[in-house]
Amino acid sequence: MSVGTIHGVGLGPGDPDLMSVRAHRLLTGAKHVAFFRKAGRTGQARKIIDGLLREDVVEYPMDYPVTTEIPLTDPRYNQALSAFYEEASAHLRALAEGGEDVVVLSEGDPFFFGSFMHIYTRVRDHVPVQVVPAITGMAAAWTATGEPITWGDDVLTVLMGTLNEAEMRARMQTTDALVVMKIGRNIDKVVGALKAAGKYDDAWLVEYASMPNQTVHKLADVEGRVTPYFSIIIVHGQGRRP
Amino acid sequence: MSVGTIHGVGLGPGDPDLMSVRAHRLLTGAKHVAFFRKAGRTGQARKIIDGLLREDVVEYPMDYPVTTEIPLTDPRYNQALSAFYEEASAHLRALAEGGEDVVVLSEGDPFFFGSFMHIYTRVRDHVPVQVVPAITGMAAAWTATGEPITWGDDVLTVLMGTLNEAEMRARMQTTDALVVMKIGRNIDKVVGALKAAGKYDDAWLVEYASMPNQTVHKLADVEGRVTPYFSIIIVHGQGRRP
Repeated sequence: MSVGTIHGVGLGPGDPDLMSVRAHRLLTGAKHVAFFRKAGRTGQARKIIDGLLREDVVEYPMDYPVTTEIPLTDPRYNQALSAFYEEASAHLRALAEGGEDVVVLSEGDPFFFGSFMHIYTRVRDHVPVQVVPAITGMAAAWTATGEPITWGDDVLTVLMGTLNEAEMRARMQTTDALVVMKIGRNIDKVVGALKAAGKYDDAWLVEYASMPNQTVHKLADVEGRVTPYFSIIIVHGQGRRP
Repeated sequence: MSVGTIHGVGLGPGDPDLMSVRAHRLLTGAKHVAFFRKAGRTGQARKIIDGLLREDVVEYPMDYPVTTEIPLTDPRYNQALSAFYEEASAHLRALAEGGEDVVVLSEGDPFFFGSFMHIYTRVRDHVPVQVVPAITGMAAAWTATGEPITWGDDVLTVLMGTLNEAEMRARMQTTDALVVMKIGRNIDKVVGALKAAGKYDDAWLVEYASMPNQTVHKLADVEGRVTPYFSIIIVHGQGRRP
């Protein structure tokens, strides 16, 4: 019996039409599909591929044991997640060792802040793994603004809103083009850093990029509104353009 | 008569299997396809879609009047390119105003250092334009290394090798994850900056990411070799991983 392959498949930003031809082919042919979700929810990745799977597909939802209930700095957060990834990885590895190919869904690009990375590092030395890159959420976000993100020799910096405000400000000040992800409850800190860096008036907020409920606003026009975690802030570069 | 649409279609990193489902559909149905190329060459974008187009497709190659013959700092460089983009934009705009849809090919993502941006800014106020985002060359490059690019709160910086060495070094020193593009004849400068920033030993060089002639090496193992312009240097982030 031959060993199966674990495919870490990037689905792109959310519009199923923006997944790659390869991802689409792997998904529509898959017998085993695994995906992360918050317990009790459908899961964003699973939603994206609704209607694409085989009728006889075997689904393996992987329910996060914790999301925002425990702070990241609490050692119990790491312990809970680590045990969770170990268990999920053992299951997927066993499927592959039993000869089955498995597709693991990944929102955005699997190697760019993706949860699949935590499976990947645990199974890669044991069974074959293939990774399918994808369109990032940030690419869908800058496309949604209708303005190119980088020109000429522009420097692009991608920051997480989870950083502290002083560090964000310093990095915002020195970059040409800027993307800030993981906004949500960090929005006040991000806004403070953008103002201090002189980039607030040029910032855009994109929610649910490429999805039916996508919104695109200048940040200044929507300040104070509740901001979802998966929204993205964009400041465009202004580099050379003949 | 209704006005046509100019579609700026990102083809992704080079493997046709990595273009989006939407890009594939637009390409296989297109009556008019425009693409940039160096005069006398097939053009990388055109190569990617070989075999996908309709038999009766009308192709419009846009030959760069200059690539590396005139330095970027010479005003004649800007003048030549500007006149070229004006002419190409006028042609595409006339097609759309005549009721035709046109697909303009873009390697990588159209709004991320793409040539299409120069068409886009010249036609957007006159005819409908739709942009299809795509997988970037850098995503294909980090996927090719077999290591995730960013974890947890990692900061990602994307730099052009055309920057001066001191500026590159300063930015390399303070980032977690790093991508350097436009290498080619800038390789010595990039290597100098990486060494000064203490990141040389962790750097990877990926040539022709996702294409049949793709190569992946630790940079230190291939130093001194001629490096193509479209190669990409990757230094992976080392952030939090449960």
